[in-house]
Amino acid sequence: MRVSKLVERSGVPLATIKYYIREGVLMPGETTSATQATYGEHHLRRLALIRALTDIVGLSVQKTAEVIRLIETPGDDLFLALGAAIGALPPYDDSDGDEQRDYPLARAVLERNGQVYDPDYPAVAQLERALTAASAAGFPIDDDRLDHYAAHTRAIAYYDLDHAPEGPARATIEYAVLGTALNEPVIAALRRLAHQDLALGRFSANIPAS
Amino acid sequence: MRVSKLVERSGVPLATIKYYIREGVLMPGETTSATQATYGEHHLRRLALIRALTDIVGLSVQKTAEVIRLIETPGDDLFLALGAAIGALPPYDDSDGDEQRDYPLARAVLERNGQVYDPDYPAVAQLERALTAASAAGFPIDDDRLDHYAAHTRAIAYYDLDHAPEGPARATIEYAVLGTALNEPVIAALRRLAHQDLALGRFSANIPAS
Repeated sequence: MRVSKLVERSGVPLATIKYYIREGVLMPGETTSATQATYGEHHLRRLALIRALTDIVGLSVQKTAEVIRLIETPGDDLFLALGAAIGALPPYDDSDGDEQRDYPLARAVLERNGQVYDPDYPAVAQLERALTAASAAGFPIDDDRLDHYAAHTRAIAYYDLDHAPEGPARATIEYAVLGTALNEPVIAALRRLAHQDLALGRFSANIPAS
Repeated sequence: MRVSKLVERSGVPLATIKYYIREGVLMPGETTSATQATYGEHHLRRLALIRALTDIVGLSVQKTAEVIRLIETPGDDLFLALGAAIGALPPYDDSDGDEQRDYPLARAVLERNGQVYDPDYPAVAQLERALTAASAAGFPIDDDRLDHYAAHTRAIAYYDLDHAPEGPARATIEYAVLGTALNEPVIAALRRLAHQDLALGRFSANIPAS
């Protein structure tokens, strides 16, 4: 298709498409003359992925290029490639590099539950930060609660892996990246709505409020 | 205690404490002379709550004041007060007010699972946005996956409500606000780490990557 058709079908403005090509995040079309190029379905799919990572996940175009490079050229160890791609997603650790990287709270829950983990995987630092923050707020998360959360998030993770696509590494990594970034807000909203449903039975009107 | 002791014990600088009092988010100390006031344990607890909501949850001081007002003066319907306080937490809906407020995707999952919900509760719009975003990214979340996520987030929510503190409405709402805002990143990190543990068994080295 011509670029005008790509603009129409993707809904992405021409200037933005040119910018994506210039930044190396969208592949150029196939040149058919000095002034024309044609584009295919893979351009449409790539534009949908770019918009998901920029508009919805909130990545910069540069971070998006990094994630897409990890999806497209995974190397020969899929496990490492998955870790690198998910590790490139937010939230980012903005603490000093010389801070202690020991993660005692995160390690305790992972080891108690027999989980294998790479201590350099960013989610370990994320878990440690979240647990430290809760303690600092005077609202520490005790072992019983953590183990309960861990059991149910593990059941969700099982489902996610059982439904990973067969086929090339590229498809598996794209599934993992989008399934992580796009489903986290779904899970958070579902928990808030379950709270509301359950609270209605327990804290509904006419119970004295103090 | 004197204000210097409050600074020392809370770790919050004097200028910040004065700013919080000026903004009405921290109650003033009890005046003991023209130039002195004394502060109590409730000031320390309030400062910890303010720092949690600003530094960790990322609320502005003005939003923090709103949430604290909802915690402190819940009115006589605890269910409504809980909804208002959680509704004041991010993520915020930045869509136009005149957009259609029907939420067909969110309604479908809630009704299929027999959940009672207030259609004006912000989590309904959050769920709709997240589901719409996943579809737009070419990665729609099907009913089977949604119901699976809903069952496990409901099990987590049960635990949360079963462990809500007895006592005044204020304590219940503070628990709900902090338990929502501080535990969401814990749950997201635990899911990423469960993915890693499970992926190690399935996608470890020496499996061809394409």
